[in-house]
Amino acid sequence: MSIALPLALTMGDPSGIGPELTLKAYAASKARDLAPFFLLADPAHLARVAAELRLDVPIEATTPQEAAQVFARALPVVPPGVAVVGVPGRPDPGDAPATILSIERAVACVAAGEARAVVTNPIAKAVLYDAGFAHPGHTEFLGELAARLFSDAPARRAVMMLWANELAVVPITIHIALAEAPRRLTRELIVETGAIVAADLAARFGIGSPRLAFAGLNPHAGENGAMGREEIEVIAPAIAELRAAGINASGPYPADTLFHAKARAAYDVALCPTHDQALIPIKTLAFDRGVNVTLGLPFVRTSPDHGTAFDIAGKGVADATSLVEALQLADRMTR
Amino acid sequence: MSIALPLALTMGDPSGIGPELTLKAYAASKARDLAPFFLLADPAHLARVAAELRLDVPIEATTPQEAAQVFARALPVVPPGVAVVGVPGRPDPGDAPATILSIERAVACVAAGEARAVVTNPIAKAVLYDAGFAHPGHTEFLGELAARLFSDAPARRAVMMLWANELAVVPITIHIALAEAPRRLTRELIVETGAIVAADLAARFGIGSPRLAFAGLNPHAGENGAMGREEIEVIAPAIAELRAAGINASGPYPADTLFHAKARAAYDVALCPTHDQALIPIKTLAFDRGVNVTLGLPFVRTSPDHGTAFDIAGKGVADATSLVEALQLADRMTR
Repeated sequence: MSIALPLALTMGDPSGIGPELTLKAYAASKARDLAPFFLLADPAHLARVAAELRLDVPIEATTPQEAAQVFARALPVVPPGVAVVGVPGRPDPGDAPATILSIERAVACVAAGEARAVVTNPIAKAVLYDAGFAHPGHTEFLGELAARLFSDAPARRAVMMLWANELAVVPITIHIALAEAPRRLTRELIVETGAIVAADLAARFGIGSPRLAFAGLNPHAGENGAMGREEIEVIAPAIAELRAAGINASGPYPADTLFHAKARAAYDVALCPTHDQALIPIKTLAFDRGVNVTLGLPFVRTSPDHGTAFDIAGKGVADATSLVEALQLADRMTR
Repeated sequence: MSIALPLALTMGDPSGIGPELTLKAYAASKARDLAPFFLLADPAHLARVAAELRLDVPIEATTPQEAAQVFARALPVVPPGVAVVGVPGRPDPGDAPATILSIERAVACVAAGEARAVVTNPIAKAVLYDAGFAHPGHTEFLGELAARLFSDAPARRAVMMLWANELAVVPITIHIALAEAPRRLTRELIVETGAIVAADLAARFGIGSPRLAFAGLNPHAGENGAMGREEIEVIAPAIAELRAAGINASGPYPADTLFHAKARAAYDVALCPTHDQALIPIKTLAFDRGVNVTLGLPFVRTSPDHGTAFDIAGKGVADATSLVEALQLADRMTR
């Protein structure tokens, strides 16, 4: 993978803050020394957003091949070929096919050797569901695209990691009702997740023998079975299996004492049984700076760690820090 | 309640770090301007701990009535009358009756008007269970003592709050297996907890109309029922009931975005359905400074927010910050 290749950025929901963030990220590209990227979006829509927000950002419709060169003088926009309505703050189900196409094209660009990595702007699942989108979220859709467009890559599950300078976390179960989490938390799921995380931290982050710290499911990690037995029956055996496979896995630790500065120094990534156990600490410590990284894919994908924020779209107040961090991390992971 | 009264400090497990913390807190009492307190413990044991750790702290056996005067020259120790073994790091079930008696005496001192508030050193439940202790934890035992020793006080449930300068949190369910939490989270429990928290934040913390922010149980607070319906069927109706009773309650909010600095500015206390949702953020932000406060009791009780730490007991490395904060908060709450 040549580092001369640009990064492919999806448009996300055009009625959300994605277009504004993209314009702001490009405006900050020299100050933040960003690697070249291009946006897969409708250039006319982006120009409208820029005009309405009075963001003086040059925009140039181009191709993936020309994008890196264009980047020096303008934000390169590669049109997937579908115009969007994209009124800020008013999501339109009619724009959903263009949103989905932008994601597909970004992955296809990486598969074709036209881009180094995929960075995604936020989507609104409810809007896409209304248009027939059948995946639980971005991550699962990318997994499906990987299987379709990288047919020679080993089939692995897509694993969500949230990353910031202070902390990296992986929720082992993600977007399911909490009542489902205990029975979904199987030894197989933990082992598979741990193996993917360990492999990708080594391959993509250059960490020789990554240290994986597993949190317990129950308060105080169950206190030796006094408050739940999943630690004894499921998590500890999974950790033992990972260790037998040569992976530096430890735990299960009580989740509440796993995230202060001293505890964080002892591991490279914390893997947590539930969504909130993983996301609370990183959003508490690094709310505006967290990056969503998908591990297990045959390509690198990062994303800002926030949603479409329809409530502030079009107001010019959206903070591009997380998108800038996502672009920088995708660059770092593919150097 | 006269502020001339001292605070009553329990000994906790004598083999844990409690004795060391108490000696260090007294040593810091002038620098930190601590209000007078007395320890309910075996003075001979405390003197042994001080000698072994080479902590040059004067100790004086006394009575609750004399304690405030003694405090100016020595750490006042009121003997409950039972000698303890208390080898650091080696908990002894034979010491359990003395540990329990110290707690009972502390509450009795407040009931008798001999102390202003109870501050507790850490206990190890497993050690007490072996000696026949039948309560799930400190908080529940204190609730039982309140009912026994303050027979004229309204019967309310004891509610655990974790407090630091940055954040106050209340777990609505506490020390139960996570799989139990969804069915234990009833509308009645939420309303009762919220009412106790609101009343005590007003009465004990002097907050006029305390702002209570409730977290959802499920990821993203269920996303309108897509990932669990407890928010719709249980939590939102409970919040509506609290609001109808004049309490400034709001939510349910996604737990992961409830704890960064800007979010925290919008409430006085966050109430969370599960133990880890509440304890992760406060231990991430204020690991050494969190104070455990029991609300709903007819008296004030605070405690350091950590355990007995048998692994470091007797080594002289224990950090008394949380106990000092607990003593200061008990003082503030009873002025």
